[in-house]
Amino acid sequence: MKKVQSICRALQQLRKRGEIMADANIPYSLNSKHVAEATRSLLHERGVTLAEIAELVMILQKKYYPNLTMEECLENVDAVLSKREVQNAVLTGIQLDKLAEEGNLLSPLQEMLANDEGLYGVDEILAFSIVNVYGSIGFTNYGYIDKLKPGVLERLNDKSSGVINTFLDDIVGAVAAAASSRIAHRKQADLEIEVTGTTEEDKNL
Amino acid sequence: MKKVQSICRALQQLRKRGEIMADANIPYSLNSKHVAEATRSLLHERGVTLAEIAELVMILQKKYYPNLTMEECLENVDAVLSKREVQNAVLTGIQLDKLAEEGNLLSPLQEMLANDEGLYGVDEILAFSIVNVYGSIGFTNYGYIDKLKPGVLERLNDKSSGVINTFLDDIVGAVAAAASSRIAHRKQADLEIEVTGTTEEDKNL
Amino acid sequence: MKKVQSICRALQQLRKRGEIMADANIPYSLNSKHVAEATRSLLHERGVTLAEIAELVMILQKKYYPNLTMEECLENVDAVLSKREVQNAVLTGIQLDKLAEEGNLLSPLQEMLANDEGLYGVDEILAFSIVNVYGSIGFTNYGYIDKLKPGVLERLNDKSSGVINTFLDDIVGAVAAAASSRIAHRKQADLEIEVTGTTEEDKNL
Amino acid sequence: MKKVQSICRALQQLRKRGEIMADANIPYSLNSKHVAEATRSLLHERGVTLAEIAELVMILQKKYYPNLTMEECLENVDAVLSKREVQNAVLTGIQLDKLAEEGNLLSPLQEMLANDEGLYGVDEILAFSIVNVYGSIGFTNYGYIDKLKPGVLERLNDKSSGVINTFLDDIVGAVAAAASSRIAHRKQADLEIEVTGTTEEDKNL
Repeated sequence: MKKVQSICRALQQLRKRGEIMADANIPYSLNSKHVAEATRSLLHERGVTLAEIAELVMILQKKYYPNLTMEECLENVDAVLSKREVQNAVLTGIQLDKLAEEGNLLSPLQEMLANDEGLYGVDEILAFSIVNVYGSIGFTNYGYIDKLKPGVLERLNDKSSGVINTFLDDIVGAVAAAASSRIAHRKQADLEIEVTGTTEEDKNL
Repeated sequence: MKKVQSICRALQQLRKRGEIMADANIPYSLNSKHVAEATRSLLHERGVTLAEIAELVMILQKKYYPNLTMEECLENVDAVLSKREVQNAVLTGIQLDKLAEEGNLLSPLQEMLANDEGLYGVDEILAFSIVNVYGSIGFTNYGYIDKLKPGVLERLNDKSSGVINTFLDDIVGAVAAAASSRIAHRKQADLEIEVTGTTEEDKNL
Repeated sequence: MKKVQSICRALQQLRKRGEIMADANIPYSLNSKHVAEATRSLLHERGVTLAEIAELVMILQKKYYPNLTMEECLENVDAVLSKREVQNAVLTGIQLDKLAEEGNLLSPLQEMLANDEGLYGVDEILAFSIVNVYGSIGFTNYGYIDKLKPGVLERLNDKSSGVINTFLDDIVGAVAAAASSRIAHRKQADLEIEVTGTTEEDKNL
Repeated sequence: MKKVQSICRALQQLRKRGEIMADANIPYSLNSKHVAEATRSLLHERGVTLAEIAELVMILQKKYYPNLTMEECLENVDAVLSKREVQNAVLTGIQLDKLAEEGNLLSPLQEMLANDEGLYGVDEILAFSIVNVYGSIGFTNYGYIDKLKPGVLERLNDKSSGVINTFLDDIVGAVAAAASSRIAHRKQADLEIEVTGTTEEDKNL
């Protein structure tokens, strides 16, 4: 028994590092660490830093919380990216961007993604599932930032580069909007603790 | 049989005009005309004209379609308001605004609505069900306009008046965003008809 | 300064207990404890116990986790109810049910709620915002249980009693579905910890 | 000018038939006919007939409308598939299924799709955007059918075949749920026309 378990662990290790395929006679089992790491690594590969997303958060929130620091923004972006629902959307969206960039999608999906077709809304749908993780209060922040495209969003949306970021720009805006919602919830908790010494504002976010 | 049917029709007529209550021993039956009329009448009662919503549509769409007319904007707002899903959201949202204004909601819902509490997002949820009627492409338009609050939205959002529009300002922005999505779909159809003589872009919107 | 703060605290205390109105010259400030308590108290008032919701969770999850205990189900229901987004939906939905029961809504919203109109979907929309808190994996559980109406849902859906639960039955099903999603996430974390000694499955749920 | 336009038309023609690539120096322009045809053709390629989807609709609706015919069910499935939002979801979902089947996705997305991972919910998210096209009343029908997996859904969900239908089974269930919502709206219109001679139930669905 002990032995089986240790073999199992070793295989998990290998699969985690991507050194063996999922179907190589090892029963599939989700590895949350692998999923979390792939999410951050894909964002990095596509040229997006967490600091850039944190800057979007600052743009959205500084007028409400003048003392908000970049460190807090970063911390909240990080918390958003640790959510499974967010990771699934990031992995799926960037995968589709990369396939479109390589020309490996079927027509007409290929052309719709390559041209960021205005009547194609699956990118917004994925973005939405990200925003939703911290509730409906983030909807407007997402829409606002996605329309104005400040900071990193302007670069991601630049069509002249040959890079396809049809999903990524929406995803990055959504992560920033979700982080903003998280900040709003936590600032409320802080305020209540300051005034009343306690809070029932949910701290598991 | 004929007689029963004509009585039934007469009762429908009365209920439609609101002259008899739904529970007065008449089996309930939805009356779509009554629902449609109540939607428009409540918007009117709360001081919102369809022309003002059409102006929001123009703000959102004129840069994409320079020849867009106010008449087209109005026609699209009208089409959005004829959707059952939209009517349900309008009736429910304005009802909650009115009850909050009269102080007739239970605490703490009363205070949350009266103060347009930032962590209360049911208004955004209803707005979202309106935008969704024309698909996910309208999400960003809604968020953008809800944040900038141009035109009628500025007035609706004025907290000094004593009037409570916690739901209404989101609803009006959502109707404008949905109308914008509808325009995008129809302009595509028009373009295809112009170039190829035909379209399979869905015209039932 | 100190004095102002202590007065502020005292007023908060009174408002928290509902002893003073929100508009009585005290600046509004959200009280998360009040919101949380009102949520549980309204569910209780409408005759729904957390144990009954936990039973729905057991129905949904026992085939996946044969060792699942009622205690775990209860704990997960409790966690769902501590989420602000869920509390907002519960407070709003039950408020509308109560107003419909008292006949205090405008026609035709009054008749649509009183008759659980099939083409009225705002109850489903609120339910959905609850399910969404733990991501999209809960959608099917909600739909399934809402259709089959086991346990407490059958009672809530009984139209003969004069009680109106148009929103409540959807809300209760949604809370059970959300708790099921939370269990799925946590069981994955437990499994990973067992096999690999660690997990990055998000534990803040 | 005239000449340019006729060349443009000819190129459109060729691209429509898939005979030239989108990037062959022709400005991109969405072709709704191509999108509509690809949707139906991909469903066919993956072994799903419209008649099978219509059977799911019949399962969902026969108890409410005993006289419902298979012809009506088919007609409503057809109408759902003519919606752009639905086409986008079908094209994207089947594309991801096919890529997973070929092993062409990045790890861990590859393994999550290949194993229909329970904590991956993007398939439900896409399904949801389909259901939403006819409003929130379809949510429960989708969840119910997705859980019970009658008819074609059982076959699609059979993991033993080597075929990957992680997205397709949700999509097919969602199309059936949306068609059911459409029927509910239209039957209401028919009823009102029968009783009162007219309806304002929206007929553009």
